[in-house]
Amino acid sequence: MTQKRPHLADAGVLLTDLYQLTMLQGYFERDMFDTAVFEFFARKLPGCRNFYLAAGLEQALDYLEQLRFSDIELEWLATQRMFRPAFIDYLAGLRFTGDVHAMPEGTPFFPDEPILRVTAPLPEAQLVESRLINLLHFQTLIASKAARVVLQAPGKRLVDFGLRRAHGAEAGVLAARASYLVGFSATATVLAGAQFGIPLAGTMAHSFIQAHANEAEAFEHFAHSLPASVVLLIDTYDTEAGAAKVVGLAPRLASAGIAVQGVRLDSGDLGEHARKVRAILDEGGLDKVTVFASGSVDEYLIGDLLAQGAPIDGFGIGTRLDTSSDAPALDCAYKLQEYAGLPRRKRSEGKATWPGRKQVYRRYDSAGLCSGDTLTLEGDATRGAALIQPVMRQGRRLRPSPSLEEVRRYTQRQLASLPMALRGLEPAVYPVHVSDTLRALAAEADRLITGGRGAAPPS
Amino acid sequence: MTQKRPHLADAGVLLTDLYQLTMLQGYFERDMFDTAVFEFFARKLPGCRNFYLAAGLEQALDYLEQLRFSDIELEWLATQRMFRPAFIDYLAGLRFTGDVHAMPEGTPFFPDEPILRVTAPLPEAQLVESRLINLLHFQTLIASKAARVVLQAPGKRLVDFGLRRAHGAEAGVLAARASYLVGFSATATVLAGAQFGIPLAGTMAHSFIQAHANEAEAFEHFAHSLPASVVLLIDTYDTEAGAAKVVGLAPRLASAGIAVQGVRLDSGDLGEHARKVRAILDEGGLDKVTVFASGSVDEYLIGDLLAQGAPIDGFGIGTRLDTSSDAPALDCAYKLQEYAGLPRRKRSEGKATWPGRKQVYRRYDSAGLCSGDTLTLEGDATRGAALIQPVMRQGRRLRPSPSLEEVRRYTQRQLASLPMALRGLEPAVYPVHVSDTLRALAAEADRLITGGRGAAPPS
Repeated sequence: MTQKRPHLADAGVLLTDLYQLTMLQGYFERDMFDTAVFEFFARKLPGCRNFYLAAGLEQALDYLEQLRFSDIELEWLATQRMFRPAFIDYLAGLRFTGDVHAMPEGTPFFPDEPILRVTAPLPEAQLVESRLINLLHFQTLIASKAARVVLQAPGKRLVDFGLRRAHGAEAGVLAARASYLVGFSATATVLAGAQFGIPLAGTMAHSFIQAHANEAEAFEHFAHSLPASVVLLIDTYDTEAGAAKVVGLAPRLASAGIAVQGVRLDSGDLGEHARKVRAILDEGGLDKVTVFASGSVDEYLIGDLLAQGAPIDGFGIGTRLDTSSDAPALDCAYKLQEYAGLPRRKRSEGKATWPGRKQVYRRYDSAGLCSGDTLTLEGDATRGAALIQPVMRQGRRLRPSPSLEEVRRYTQRQLASLPMALRGLEPAVYPVHVSDTLRALAAEADRLITGGRGAAPPS
Repeated sequence: MTQKRPHLADAGVLLTDLYQLTMLQGYFERDMFDTAVFEFFARKLPGCRNFYLAAGLEQALDYLEQLRFSDIELEWLATQRMFRPAFIDYLAGLRFTGDVHAMPEGTPFFPDEPILRVTAPLPEAQLVESRLINLLHFQTLIASKAARVVLQAPGKRLVDFGLRRAHGAEAGVLAARASYLVGFSATATVLAGAQFGIPLAGTMAHSFIQAHANEAEAFEHFAHSLPASVVLLIDTYDTEAGAAKVVGLAPRLASAGIAVQGVRLDSGDLGEHARKVRAILDEGGLDKVTVFASGSVDEYLIGDLLAQGAPIDGFGIGTRLDTSSDAPALDCAYKLQEYAGLPRRKRSEGKATWPGRKQVYRRYDSAGLCSGDTLTLEGDATRGAALIQPVMRQGRRLRPSPSLEEVRRYTQRQLASLPMALRGLEPAVYPVHVSDTLRALAAEADRLITGGRGAAPPS
């Protein structure tokens, strides 16, 4: 990213939980610098998702490459009466020097399958936990929601309208990115256009109409002001009357060389209004004018509207996309799987994890559709395509990241490879097999823990 | 805020929707600079909220005071082939010069009651819509959720643990602020401590335990590393066995001058574990050691646990707080209510608004509890306390903002003034009366619109 494009500033290394820093001090003081392996994965799918879609890797790698404590941050930490001077000095020189393996952005994945693995000296791998989860969770959350919308609306224009009710600045910008990589056409969020090159789209607000003496005057003014992109909002007072005004206005605009491209509906029964408006436009000779709908739109509403045959050409999708409102968080974690060469496993009730460095192999049927995954250990060669690949070595990317357009094309192919049942809105289950090799390692990790409970530990 | 404290950078003026900029160009080219009045309010309460709690004003005022286009932003806009040079020149000089009236942060409010009013030349008041909503919506969302938690847990220590699943960086930091102002004790998010002075808290992660040869060694190491704040996570392998290890360890730590302050439970049936752990600690002479619980905690679980008498002294609350998971968005809006001296009103189906500059009067009963509100026009003197007050004139704050501690104390008094029914988890309705004055103005605005539909407009 060049410095000349406007962009959201990175949040810095203090965007972490306090315990990361206090644990780091503990590791530092006991020389616990051995290699740790952490993996990020999600647990059970919410009932309203058939798959997760990996996203956020690009921002995660940016974060790791740029990780360092600034003087201001170090000075502030030194005032906190929790950290000893030698530890602050250590933080001053801390960089991320580890390796990262990951699934590419846009890859569908399933419960317990890691999408990112960090292999690094323990303090480095620990410190980054909070922000890595924060970055991977959010874009994966939005991409997984956006994928459902995209799959319900083939051929439709989909625009992200969610900034205002996204949870803060970064959520607005990254939701635009996550939905675009999945197949959305554009976003209304200007900063996302500036930062990521995502196409921008927008119409007008009700306030623009209201600020004019009447609706027809507002339409005409808008068309002259932005002749290349005339999409008129027609529901401020009465949707069908608004459509009739567009018909009345079109010849005068045409004589000025301006074509109305579309109308937007934003309230009421969108299917009913779309049919009436389409008829008014068609009777008025405006059969090329498209109908765009917004207002509480999500994949369920789109599915219903299109099943009814509602003549809608595109959708603006806001709150329900940018907050993933039916599942606003995923049950995901970043867990220690190995330390100093030994497998590690958490066994807390309902939250046990699979230890070791894992790989996911995906098999395809003769039609090219995914038919099942195997979760096993790295190096345990298994039939299928290995989804987790090296992306960073010793703190540096192995290669330039793919462009967002490349990620978008990859994601399209990935979605097209999902079994049909997974692409719909009805719950469907995808088979993930846990290998015997992995089960054996889990048993070994448990024996190590059992040793830790009473007898002398094995290390 | 001094420059020496670490803080999240402000997002800039491009954090807006494209249509704000295209509408602005329209206003600019038609000299539509008359005074506009916009108000921010929320519509219907979700079924799982009895009131909203206003928050985010401080960040909204920062945004308005700092609003300007940087050279980089202007250069980027100029490349977009949508904006004419004279308009870009106008943006270069644009500042927010308007007035703001608002309810103080921490004030409970109800549907249709504005919490912020902007009075400014139309382009300025329009441009700021997207980011003002983004800022006010999110903190109000979190404060409204946090208030329910606080009211369910009188006297308990409540700590925000939500950063990792908050929706991005700003959401994590501002959720810490919003929950602290409502009465939370602390946050785990370091940057929120640095930026806002919120007390920080934290324990240890499972990975710290797992990285050690055994749990007891991890506990002892942690206690020596952070002797002032020894809260031990005991559920990594077996919660009650972990508690027994704490009992076994305590005498050795005491002889080194270190007192264990607490233990944390993070999985399983928290009430059942708390009872067993409390008994183990008490039998071991550790009756001063507190029990802290985390893991899928929200106001419902806290209510259940405390109703059962579970011996829990504090709670870590993460995902369900920072995403307001049962209502991850509020149906709120920022709407034009007056332009060039005339009332304006949107009448879209299900989304009609009350026009004009409004005031909310709140009445109290003899016990000091709120007994009802009246929504009316500014200047229409009505019984009760006027909740909306001037906070900014000509783009500058009228006075320094209250400190976060002052907001916190104010919020405590506000919550204590709510009727008992509203403080619980069962749905309850608060009476808000819409004045005849306001109804008359709405009718007048409708007549103006009707004029706009067919006959010549009145202006």
